[in-house]
Amino acid sequence: MINISNALDNLVDEFSKLPQIGRKTAMRLAMHITRQPRQDVERFSRALTEIKDRLRFCSVCCNITEDEVCNICRAVSRKPGIICVVEEPQDVFAIEKTNEFKGKYHVLHGIISPLDGIGPNDIRIKELLDRLGRNDENKVEELILALNPTVEGETTILYLSKLLKPLEIKITRIARGIPVGSDLEFADEVTLAKALEGRILI
Amino acid sequence: MINISNALDNLVDEFSKLPQIGRKTAMRLAMHITRQPRQDVERFSRALTEIKDRLRFCSVCCNITEDEVCNICRAVSRKPGIICVVEEPQDVFAIEKTNEFKGKYHVLHGIISPLDGIGPNDIRIKELLDRLGRNDENKVEELILALNPTVEGETTILYLSKLLKPLEIKITRIARGIPVGSDLEFADEVTLAKALEGRILI
Repeated sequence: MINISNALDNLVDEFSKLPQIGRKTAMRLAMHITRQPRQDVERFSRALTEIKDRLRFCSVCCNITEDEVCNICRAVSRKPGIICVVEEPQDVFAIEKTNEFKGKYHVLHGIISPLDGIGPNDIRIKELLDRLGRNDENKVEELILALNPTVEGETTILYLSKLLKPLEIKITRIARGIPVGSDLEFADEVTLAKALEGRILI
Repeated sequence: MINISNALDNLVDEFSKLPQIGRKTAMRLAMHITRQPRQDVERFSRALTEIKDRLRFCSVCCNITEDEVCNICRAVSRKPGIICVVEEPQDVFAIEKTNEFKGKYHVLHGIISPLDGIGPNDIRIKELLDRLGRNDENKVEELILALNPTVEGETTILYLSKLLKPLEIKITRIARGIPVGSDLEFADEVTLAKALEGRILI
């Protein structure tokens, strides 16, 4: 293969490091960049470094933010007594989109996964404990574990529920069941069993 | 939707401007970036601007290159008498991968498309004419039109063949037919007709 340009090869390499971007897509994206006006490319380039310059972790909930304490943690309109524990910042966006949750969050930045060598100390569990242990006016009444219903998610839920038992906080987990718009017949048996188990009175 | 960070929103915007990257994918990519070490993100950022600093168009074939004249145009091992005309730089990569073509290229950077307002003067046809008209030792004997067999491709082929007729250069086009590994039964009738028409002696 003839070498057209090292700069182009570098950019293709960088694009193909992104998740789910293969060499062919990376090449298409890089070619798209070559056709863009210089100022647009520079804006993209700046947006990348600014992420590193500006983003930090909220000192309360560990979500990403540009401030010492994030917007959600500072919002007086949100109930401080309910904390929803999620794996990643994306999950906060997903739950916010429902417009159904008015409490606060805690972002673990990972999930316990012994096979990947990720233990309880590798994720933000200590920060959660510190937060729950604080005896201020914002006593936590309920902890919603909104973790993915995977083996790792279950492990983390089990670990957290044992760990937090002495604190006597109500701990809940989000329902496992049939996705809305889906079909019973295509649900796997574990999901269907959990949907039955989690049935609610109408 | 709560505003987490303007820097994050900006990066999501930039990613979603890329072709075939929607908001959800853009968000996933941006979140991936937030988790990368600073030096990796800076390398990506630099790779973007370097494309604009370093890439230019080859003064002979109009392909992208870092030099005044590209590697392929400078290569003495390649026959100067055969020029393969393609739409985009990606097509050069695609043909190079076959290892079957040992001539030179000409990149049009577009295709004649009246519906999109792209006429002959908007693509690099003038540069091709200049090149063919040059009376140097590298007389062009054959021009292979390797354009996509779409309406626009056909229009461009028709335009070029009429325009270049007075030059008395052999003009060919790449075969339309059944893709290797594919099935006759799934071919559309136009492709099949072209495959029949383009049959070769075995």
